[in-house]
Amino acid sequence: MLLCDIGNTSFHFYDGKKDYKKDVTSFDSSSIDEKVYYICVNPKLKEVLHILKNWVDLAEYIDMNKYYNSMGIDRIMACEAVDNNIIIDAGSAITVDLVKNSKFEGGFIYAGVSAMEKTYKDISSALDYSFNFECDLDIMPKNSRDAISYGYLKTLYSEVISHEMQIVLTGGDAQKLASVFPTAKVDDKLIFTGMRKIIKKANIC
Amino acid sequence: MLLCDIGNTSFHFYDGKKDYKKDVTSFDSSSIDEKVYYICVNPKLKEVLHILKNWVDLAEYIDMNKYYNSMGIDRIMACEAVDNNIIIDAGSAITVDLVKNSKFEGGFIYAGVSAMEKTYKDISSALDYSFNFECDLDIMPKNSRDAISYGYLKTLYSEVISHEMQIVLTGGDAQKLASVFPTAKVDDKLIFTGMRKIIKKANIC
Repeated sequence: MLLCDIGNTSFHFYDGKKDYKKDVTSFDSSSIDEKVYYICVNPKLKEVLHILKNWVDLAEYIDMNKYYNSMGIDRIMACEAVDNNIIIDAGSAITVDLVKNSKFEGGFIYAGVSAMEKTYKDISSALDYSFNFECDLDIMPKNSRDAISYGYLKTLYSEVISHEMQIVLTGGDAQKLASVFPTAKVDDKLIFTGMRKIIKKANIC
Repeated sequence: MLLCDIGNTSFHFYDGKKDYKKDVTSFDSSSIDEKVYYICVNPKLKEVLHILKNWVDLAEYIDMNKYYNSMGIDRIMACEAVDNNIIIDAGSAITVDLVKNSKFEGGFIYAGVSAMEKTYKDISSALDYSFNFECDLDIMPKNSRDAISYGYLKTLYSEVISHEMQIVLTGGDAQKLASVFPTAKVDDKLIFTGMRKIIKKANIC
């Protein structure tokens, strides 16, 4: 079974054994003959893929009453993957979603690592640092680099742990955040797990 | 006694009764004859003011062993104003500083309101909202505007209250944050209070 998570920059495939990426600007989706179960947050590509019969949009099998209208399908798929967790999906944005007893209980959106480094730099050239992910979050900082690292990371940490739920980390920057959330489970295939659950539930495979 | 807090955009004067601002690009600092006690974060203006004999730079009277080198003089002055508080100074950046028994215990830097609204907009046009400062921070959001408002405000809130200190809010966006921190004391003259304390301590008036 071939799964594909399509973002704004790449097609992320997973065949159950290995995963690989293809660039959205150069990859020809009609070059694949086998059935592909996909989710897509890229509106232009959605139009192209709807024409291709072997590409199956899993968004159509989601019970949207459980979520809200403008919520990204990648966030929804991650929520479908778990039963009782707080999910941190660290990409260009960091989404934090709460699932209790398999029910989506809401979530929030934080800025991603590189977006936030740019924000500090734009506020002042004196804040032009990469974050220190090893910064000691138990003490208030006394230097500029740690002051922005703490400002970005500890605020997120304090809010996330207040929910007292097992944390699951996914997304491109999951490894960077793993040192901040030492008790978190890192799962870079979380979205694919959600997709497989939906396929099974809808009995379409 | 005339006090002046000089930033990158304005001279902020306070004569003990009323405060008023002058634009840095048009205001002529040599047009004032009386003594002015000031702090300045603008390096170019510092050079100009050092030549004028009636302008007294209060940075010279600070015991820098209590702080760290690259820390802004405005943050330092706010810390000098209090004995036991957590200070939130909400400007283009939001600085959060901890003072216990009149000792600076460290602080962190968060992005300011407008910088952060721009960050979300730049991540995705679907996140181009002004923050909802009345957003209910007791429940996880189920719409995009509240998801970013909660992401920005509740994370800051969760970290700040974890220190269990009386909160003082100052800076241009203090009123906006007042609804998020209902127990906070809003003091838009905090920096001037710090400046007066330094003048008294140094016995230079």
